[in-house]
Amino acid sequence: MENIKIDHLDEQAMVNAQQHIDQLTKPVGSLGKIEELAIQLAGVTRNAKPNLQKPAIIVFAADHGITAEGISAFPQEVTIQMVANMANGGAAINAFANNIGADFKVVDVGVNTDQPMDGAVDRKVMHGTKNYAKGNAMTLKEVEQALQVGYEETKMMIEAGADSICFGEVGIGNTTVSSTLFAAISNLPVTHITGYGTGISDEQLLRKIEVIENTLEFHLKEPLVGKQILAHLGGLEIAAMAGGMIAAAQHHTPILLDGLISTVSACVAEQIVSGVKSYLFATHKSVEPGHVYALNYLQLTPLIDLEFRLGEGTGAAVAYPLFSAACHMMNDMATFADAGVSGKS
Amino acid sequence: MENIKIDHLDEQAMVNAQQHIDQLTKPVGSLGKIEELAIQLAGVTRNAKPNLQKPAIIVFAADHGITAEGISAFPQEVTIQMVANMANGGAAINAFANNIGADFKVVDVGVNTDQPMDGAVDRKVMHGTKNYAKGNAMTLKEVEQALQVGYEETKMMIEAGADSICFGEVGIGNTTVSSTLFAAISNLPVTHITGYGTGISDEQLLRKIEVIENTLEFHLKEPLVGKQILAHLGGLEIAAMAGGMIAAAQHHTPILLDGLISTVSACVAEQIVSGVKSYLFATHKSVEPGHVYALNYLQLTPLIDLEFRLGEGTGAAVAYPLFSAACHMMNDMATFADAGVSGKS
Repeated sequence: MENIKIDHLDEQAMVNAQQHIDQLTKPVGSLGKIEELAIQLAGVTRNAKPNLQKPAIIVFAADHGITAEGISAFPQEVTIQMVANMANGGAAINAFANNIGADFKVVDVGVNTDQPMDGAVDRKVMHGTKNYAKGNAMTLKEVEQALQVGYEETKMMIEAGADSICFGEVGIGNTTVSSTLFAAISNLPVTHITGYGTGISDEQLLRKIEVIENTLEFHLKEPLVGKQILAHLGGLEIAAMAGGMIAAAQHHTPILLDGLISTVSACVAEQIVSGVKSYLFATHKSVEPGHVYALNYLQLTPLIDLEFRLGEGTGAAVAYPLFSAACHMMNDMATFADAGVSGKS
Repeated sequence: MENIKIDHLDEQAMVNAQQHIDQLTKPVGSLGKIEELAIQLAGVTRNAKPNLQKPAIIVFAADHGITAEGISAFPQEVTIQMVANMANGGAAINAFANNIGADFKVVDVGVNTDQPMDGAVDRKVMHGTKNYAKGNAMTLKEVEQALQVGYEETKMMIEAGADSICFGEVGIGNTTVSSTLFAAISNLPVTHITGYGTGISDEQLLRKIEVIENTLEFHLKEPLVGKQILAHLGGLEIAAMAGGMIAAAQHHTPILLDGLISTVSACVAEQIVSGVKSYLFATHKSVEPGHVYALNYLQLTPLIDLEFRLGEGTGAAVAYPLFSAACHMMNDMATFADAGVSGKS
């Protein structure tokens, strides 16, 4: 995977997009962030008039041994239950997939069960990571397998016609893993980037911070990057998302980030294959405090803030219509010349 | 119109909606503003599981005599040209109507032309308002006619099946009129609530502020409210939007506000028929500085901020998918009990 080359954005398409926008029948600049979005989409898709038609949502599911340390509001079996719920169409991400007519799949990359999960794609690498409070979460080989799962499953959706991808995840404990990963990547204070996840108590938050600080001390004898950091801390769905983002960037496909976990996956993806960053879109700002720091680290500004703290790709899916709106602006609007509209006095 | 009674929101539907949301398979409160939106939609539509299906956009077009004072970046004939552009499907609002599959119509309530405008609904009350720097913008009778046009045209869309309405406008000069109206309503300093509109220069902004201050001094010998304020200052499309909002509120139909002009129309609508306020939704925060003050005046908080400053209903139309997302959340998601998902540990 490290040998994959990511193209630079198409600068000429972006220049042409900006010129087109400035000829459309509206005051220059008056569609603000939608104009900026259209220009980046032009660069990513190599099309001065980007025209997204087929959104896809891919959710990677896995478990985390770190839940043994009591850092989550929900028991680990909720991962299995939520994968089943998604496969049955009952989760929030299904509702929002319906809202935008998106293709959807949930991929088991490491849920801690032997029971078959109908409707989920079975690409299980292992039965959840090991507890990284006691040792490494997984081997480098397992990291590579999880990256490959993400890469292949995402590439399959793109080959089936998906022209933008919302990345989501489910995995009890994964805000803890993401905060640990991001602390290791950014060297920011753990207290700044650790939050309530799905809704732990103040007491549990102190415990979560303590676990993260202890595990960082345990693992960071030397700086960790890329695949190493995933082997030390996990998780499988984070590795899979990183692999999926690498596939999307390689195929000039917009990557719609969700909250903390997908954004930390993007940080890792960029460490493994440089250049992924240009293909990222920050859809929303989550309540989880690490999220905005992770976006800043990637020099991204979120489009909207709906005070979400759910994951699953929900923020990305809810924000997707802004992307299609940008495309409609580029393809449906008349220019001043076409419409015979006068310019400024 | 003053005799129309607006029902209170359906409090029981709102309580039931909140209870339903708290049983859905997600951490309590984790969908933030989308949950709040669903609850208000329940109250407005009298349905604990609101299910919007058919958005509509209505744009009212009119001219303003105040343009003679040199307060706009564009010449007055741009109103005519933009109505034609909308009727031909080439304006920003058409692109965003396409994005959400909305019914669309543009209503000429007072464009300054005798030429027929194919594709626009002809409900012209007069050839634009008079210059309110010199006298009243229109008569009380003309105000009543414009209110009635808005009421009837909106009611027609609701009767044809529209279950939410985005209100938009086009009319060169109408940010000046709206800032003047809102200064008269709120007593806020003109400098705080007056902006660049479609993109005037700093010099023109000073002129615009001067015109507004002078006209306020001229008209506000005594406090003006409701229809009176419209007669003094205009404008025809603002009156029509107010009438349309009264129709929507009366018919339990969500009102999606756009920027400054539609929000000031809502302030006037509430003065004419008390209770409209509960049916208003603040979709976005515009760049125009008066907008956020007008939203505060109505005790509304905007959902998103895309740095729009265009009008036409564009912000409302772009934000509409958040409303449909809220409805999908209410209707598509499983409950913890249905899905067999465990609660918190």
